Formats: sequence, C-alpha cells, structure tokens
Amino acid sequence: MAQKDSNGTLPLNETIEIPVRSGRAFLLQKGQRLTVIDPRGGQVSDLLAFNLHDQREVISSGRSLDYASRIYLTTNDPLYSNRSNIMLRIVEDTVGRHDFLLTPCSKDTFRIIYGDKEPHQGCFGNLAEAVQPYGIEPDDIPVAFNCFMNTVVDGKTGELQVLPPISKAGDHITFEADMDLIVGLTACSALQSNGGSFKPIHFRVDANRP
Amino acid sequence: MAQKDSNGTLPLNETIEIPVRSGRAFLLQKGQRLTVIDPRGGQVSDLLAFNLHDQREVISSGRSLDYASRIYLTTNDPLYSNRSNIMLRIVEDTVGRHDFLLTPCSKDTFRIIYGDKEPHQGCFGNLAEAVQPYGIEPDDIPVAFNCFMNTVVDGKTGELQVLPPISKAGDHITFEADMDLIVGLTACSALQSNGGSFKPIHFRVDANRP
Repeated sequence: MAQKDSNGTLPLNETIEIPVRSGRAFLLQKGQRLTVIDPRGGQVSDLLAFNLHDQREVISSGRSLDYASRIYLTTNDPLYSNRSNIMLRIVEDTVGRHDFLLTPCSKDTFRIIYGDKEPHQGCFGNLAEAVQPYGIEPDDIPVAFNCFMNTVVDGKTGELQVLPPISKAGDHITFEADMDLIVGLTACSALQSNGGSFKPIHFRVDANRP
Repeated sequence: MAQKDSNGTLPLNETIEIPVRSGRAFLLQKGQRLTVIDPRGGQVSDLLAFNLHDQREVISSGRSLDYASRIYLTTNDPLYSNRSNIMLRIVEDTVGRHDFLLTPCSKDTFRIIYGDKEPHQGCFGNLAEAVQPYGIEPDDIPVAFNCFMNTVVDGKTGELQVLPPISKAGDHITFEADMDLIVGLTACSALQSNGGSFKPIHFRVDANRP
C-alpha cells in the first residue's frame, strides 16, 4: 500500500506550477484527467506513473512502444505498465512529439554526457525525492514518458538526437487515468532537451468526467 | 545477496544450447566473456543482466541508449545499469543489428499483438522462471538487450517494424562482464521476431582473459 502524504491529493481544476529544474508527485484517481502544459514553449516534462495500490506496477516504455508499433505516442495511445495493464490514455495532444526512449536526466547524465564537475540531480533526483514518501526507491524509476521531448532517430544509422521541443507556449497533452496512480512530474533539468534554457511546467488535474 | 543455485556456474569454454522457445539463467563473473551464437541464422536471443551482489541493479535500455546517442549498439558499446554503472561491454559483433527498445515477448504480447487464445509464456515467462531462483521477481524484468532482433524505426513517423534478423548461421555477439552478474538468456518465442520459425540459440562462457 502507498503511504499517502498530506500533499498527495491536489486541488482539482487548478493550474499548478512546477518551478524550473524541479519535480513533484501527486495522486491521480482512475477517471481523472491530468493536463501537462508547456507555458512558455520548448520545455520538457518527465512523467512517471505507479499503481497506487501496488507500486511494483510501473509505466513501461518497452510494452507501450511494442503494442503501439511506434516510438512517438499521441492522442488515443495507451501507456501500459510492466504488467501490460493500461495506466493512462492520451486523450488530447496539441504537440504530437514526445519521447519514450530515454531515462530521466540525472547526475550521471550530466557527468557522462555534459562532463559537469558538480552535476545537478536532474529529473531523476527530483523524481526520486518526490516519490520517496510513497515508498518508491530510486532503483524503481524506469524510462519516463517525456512530454514535449523531441528525440529524433536516424532510421538508417540508429543515431539519436535530442532537438529542441516543437511545443509552443500554451501547448498541452492530456492523459486520463485508467487506474489509481501515483504520478511524478518534472520541469526538466537538461539543457539540451529544453532548447538551451530552463522554464517551468504547468499542470492541472480535472475531476472525473460526468 | 543472490541465492546461488547449483546450476548457476557453467562449465567454461563449452557451447551450450538453449532449446527453441526456452530460456535459462547463469552466473557471469567480472572479466568473463559471454558469446551468444545464432547457430542457424535468423534467431533472436533476449539478454538480461542483474548485479549478482544486489539484484536491484539491472540493465537499462534508457541509460545505455542515452549515453551512446544511438539505438543500435555494437562493438565497443557499453551496456549500463539503472545506476549508470557499466554491466557489460560488447567486444565482438559479427551482426551489428540488435534491439534495445522492446520488452521480452510475453503472454500479453501474444494476446495483444497476435490475438492468441492460449498464449505461450514467451521470453518473459521463460526469463521469469529462469531468474526466480536468484530471488528476482517478474516485476523486476526490464527491457532486455535483444541479440539479433531487427527492429527498424521510420525516422519520420516513428513507426516500428520487427523484421527478420540479418544474422546468418554461426554469427555471434560477445560481451565482457564489467561486474559479477546474473544473466538471463533465451531462444526467443515470438514468430515475427524470428522470421517465422523457432530455432535454438547457442552460447559459451569463456574464462577471464589472461
């Protein structure tokens, strides 16, 4: 069972800001909708989901991409768990380009890719802190669904490039929960993923549909 | 700590067969080399790796692809763990096309993608059985490194296609262990991944290099 902290349940229908290079976790009930908004444009937000009632069930890129037969997921695509259950469905998407290949940026990312001497804890560290009150450990953090992240693949060589997001100010992606979830969400901390500048992310949880 | 079973340590320098649609697990010590051979050509083998001394440390597609900036890994590429440590290095590769995007085929894969009514347990079930004696649970099984699996990506649409492997009879890929590992290995059970027929896989563990 999840340990619910007092901040887990959010006010509904209110836009909440995630400050630059930070993250938070909250509860999303089955049927509720989560809208992730890029308020200024060009900013990535890493999303994690865990089954509230059994946190060993977690979002799975490998299952979701396999069942979609596509690396770019958008409206009407489900996000599956490691147990092949649907956790979230994408119900609206004004962007159509998100990443589901790469793990959240971390101290190691900044050390290995950027050569940083005193690396920021990145989305990985921010997510680990945010989900820790629910009994979720850093080792449990898988590949995230990286909203607005623009990873392109060269089909011939397999080369990956992380380009600036194509999201414009006010663009959003909306998910509907298919089970009760613990969600982790960030304003991404990697310079390359965000077109060279760090910006906040906005999100909103809407009540169950009538 | 791992629970070592009596079959965990293999005879060295001997070729061992994994029968069609099955899998096994074994220990690979730091410095030892594992060669996975496609004896007939056109057959996939899913590979998992866990830190022998702490099974919560596990092979990570998201980290490995991110650090390589490529989806196709080959000679000289390291396979990283979820803690960004190198678990294995590819030291020889006569094929150059392997998949690191998709989770092992499972009952759910066969149900969802193939519409099977009484689905085979797939590589996922075979791996889960094989690693269970080491205290590793099905939920701990991540995206595998799928030797010889030929997943192609359309760079524009993101469409994924699983084509027959390009491996010919006798082709191989060799890994060197960078830490003590529990390795899971299969002869893959998904028709589409193996060009329409199920074949065995051969492998060999060689002693530490002099």
